[in-house]
Amino acid sequence: MSEQDELLSKAFHLVRQYLEQDSELVVQYESPESLNTKVDLSIPAIGVSQEKFLYLLETYLTYSVRTQHPQFFNQLFSGSNLPGLIGELFTSLTNTSMATYEIAPLATLIEQTLIAELNAYVGFNSGEGTFVTGGSNANMVAMICARNQAFPTAKDQGMLHQSAVFVSEQAHYSFLKAANVLGIGLNNVIKVKTDPKGRMIPQALQAAIEGAIASGKTPFFVAATAGTTVLGAFDPIPEIAEMTQKHQLWLHIDAAWGGAVLLSDRYRHFLIGSERADSLTWDAHKLMGLPIVCSAILIKHQGILAQTVSNQDADYLFHDHENSAYDLGLTSLQCGRKADSLKLWLAWQYYGKSGYQKKIDWLLEMADYATQKVNQCPELELMAPTQFLNICFRYVGNPSADLDRLNLELRDRLVKSGKSLVNYTFLKGQVILRLVLANSEVQRTDLDQFFENILAIGRTL
Amino acid sequence: MSEQDELLSKAFHLVRQYLEQDSELVVQYESPESLNTKVDLSIPAIGVSQEKFLYLLETYLTYSVRTQHPQFFNQLFSGSNLPGLIGELFTSLTNTSMATYEIAPLATLIEQTLIAELNAYVGFNSGEGTFVTGGSNANMVAMICARNQAFPTAKDQGMLHQSAVFVSEQAHYSFLKAANVLGIGLNNVIKVKTDPKGRMIPQALQAAIEGAIASGKTPFFVAATAGTTVLGAFDPIPEIAEMTQKHQLWLHIDAAWGGAVLLSDRYRHFLIGSERADSLTWDAHKLMGLPIVCSAILIKHQGILAQTVSNQDADYLFHDHENSAYDLGLTSLQCGRKADSLKLWLAWQYYGKSGYQKKIDWLLEMADYATQKVNQCPELELMAPTQFLNICFRYVGNPSADLDRLNLELRDRLVKSGKSLVNYTFLKGQVILRLVLANSEVQRTDLDQFFENILAIGRTL
Repeated sequence: MSEQDELLSKAFHLVRQYLEQDSELVVQYESPESLNTKVDLSIPAIGVSQEKFLYLLETYLTYSVRTQHPQFFNQLFSGSNLPGLIGELFTSLTNTSMATYEIAPLATLIEQTLIAELNAYVGFNSGEGTFVTGGSNANMVAMICARNQAFPTAKDQGMLHQSAVFVSEQAHYSFLKAANVLGIGLNNVIKVKTDPKGRMIPQALQAAIEGAIASGKTPFFVAATAGTTVLGAFDPIPEIAEMTQKHQLWLHIDAAWGGAVLLSDRYRHFLIGSERADSLTWDAHKLMGLPIVCSAILIKHQGILAQTVSNQDADYLFHDHENSAYDLGLTSLQCGRKADSLKLWLAWQYYGKSGYQKKIDWLLEMADYATQKVNQCPELELMAPTQFLNICFRYVGNPSADLDRLNLELRDRLVKSGKSLVNYTFLKGQVILRLVLANSEVQRTDLDQFFENILAIGRTL
Repeated sequence: MSEQDELLSKAFHLVRQYLEQDSELVVQYESPESLNTKVDLSIPAIGVSQEKFLYLLETYLTYSVRTQHPQFFNQLFSGSNLPGLIGELFTSLTNTSMATYEIAPLATLIEQTLIAELNAYVGFNSGEGTFVTGGSNANMVAMICARNQAFPTAKDQGMLHQSAVFVSEQAHYSFLKAANVLGIGLNNVIKVKTDPKGRMIPQALQAAIEGAIASGKTPFFVAATAGTTVLGAFDPIPEIAEMTQKHQLWLHIDAAWGGAVLLSDRYRHFLIGSERADSLTWDAHKLMGLPIVCSAILIKHQGILAQTVSNQDADYLFHDHENSAYDLGLTSLQCGRKADSLKLWLAWQYYGKSGYQKKIDWLLEMADYATQKVNQCPELELMAPTQFLNICFRYVGNPSADLDRLNLELRDRLVKSGKSLVNYTFLKGQVILRLVLANSEVQRTDLDQFFENILAIGRTL
């Protein structure tokens, strides 16, 4: 066994041990100051020994959040599933860039297969797409495609237009970032009112579009959300599509969180009308359980990506040859690009379509169970109707207390206990806890445990 | 052993086998059409068996380019080093997002340590920075920081200005992409003439700036390149810095390829004056041998990133609390972001500063050796003086032939033989082969073999 192979073998052993271990805690909480004293982060002059290297790996595991833990309900993702983890390892092992077929032959075909598959779920019959660097980036790519279609001179001459884009007031903050990046301006992101469930109100969109036009701005882009970050709301696509069709605006769907409902016969109606959109963001690292990042932007019409991002200055990389049509770098804003498609392809092979359908159905069943638990417990209050996999609630066992402060304190203690991780946010000015179901391994007993942990702390406050 | 553990164990075995194997070929070349018939890419209704899954992994290895092979000279990267590969595996194992300290405690401190370390090499004494999604993205982030500093209303109102940015005519195409994305416009990317070695001519920059001003455009950004893509040229930073200082323009250095010279006492003078820049792009996945992507944007002055990318709409994620200063998502354009810093930190621990210095010095020694080989062989011609790790040459053994066609044909046959991989491009309208040294494991014998492979094919044409 070579020295390198020995190190690899020991590192692999640590991985297997980590995955087989049942850890009681999601995280061993340390403040930044304390963690800084516990780990020597400095770069050494001379390389460390094999023992020290393995010790650093163990240290990393000790102080990292166990996002695959059944008590991790903090984000719109959780852990990595096994085929996804293996996929990521094989991607790094064969480390290449998705720029050309020449250096990524099979990965190119895999990416093309997956883009076609995802498009089929959305209903884009002759669509295109590319893997991107995250849901935020997917939303931005959609916006630049729309921008350059609406303002054909923008690419060459710059964005010298007063324009307007529309999102719901519950939409993800990445649209603001995109408007900043793309030279559109934050003031031109118009936030459309939502109904009490957090869904964009089509009449309000209509009014917003007309208002923008009246103030001299040129509307070009509407983003509906399928699964909002806080409430899990699905905007009404068919009604919104009527508006965008009427005004000839690009309709984008941010389905980063909710897109996976399309994998389920039972729940795909949540995204009814998706085929009427021009583009859709799909984050497979959220509900498909893959390591971050695994995101795709899907576009209804072929040719738009290349037209939007193409440039002439890379003849050192892109050659005009027999396989040019397979050079995916021509439709990407990246030059070096990791093969993020492999892990998704392998996981889909591993679970099959039916496996993923079961996962989505199961998560929605768990969301229903968690909602019932909240409703049945007098010390808890559901703060918004559950529409998807987000359960917004809070502890109300001490009604005379300042419930905002109490829930912040409860949540802080919970995080520091390391027993469960759940995030909080504000809803109509009130602090709420947002339980997110993203881990399809979660069982009823895990949810029972979670609420027990909440109540146990709440009762001490 | 659980079923999952058994699969993991078998996948790990494949990885170790792949790394220990000496493969004769860099790639087993297949056309897209042929490869499509050899691998069933479709997504199955029911998940595949463990055997089938392992077969798919082996298939992926069989048809992927072995970028770590000593005959892979095709791109500005090669393979993954061992600590980097292990780092990537542990990143996926503990899968989290770099948005907040809460969910990425140790990874946050690691990223901060590395940004400080890289800034120290550049000479940014109180700098900031963030890991980004690649060198192209780093260049874009630099440009948006500069844009929003120069045009303070751009963020809110949009980029309603006729502006101008300057790069050398040998600069990377990502600056064009950035200008498109940022609403600046391709026409406003002004390409400054280079000297015969491919270095930006400062007097030409001066003239270009004055010309832009005269035509009513507002210059705000100059990008120097440290290690150009084709020739490996280093633009003269001190002279360029004089110009940018005089005109109060943002000076960026695209050191994606050449930045690693700063790791070497012997070669850091290539980047003399780096501390005078405002920002610098550093791709650790190039000369530091890490899996793609591992890129950082470094900024001289603290506070600019947050000011440039911040937004108010994410109180579901970013909370005002005791550890807010450690929430790295506040300085990133990404929301979900992989912990790309871990692999770099681990590799740096493994090799130490001295180990990386040796790697850089060794690569430059090999570049010298390869250059000598070309110069000593009458059938080969050096097409540009070697300045860094790019050796631009071509086969001239048959001087009566159309040498452009001959070299294209030679290179095509070489790629299809799978014996060596080297890229080609155009220099002053002529086809050249560009040998890139990015793999510090490459030995003289590998270079001997490479030129033998070239000559063997050349002599048949």
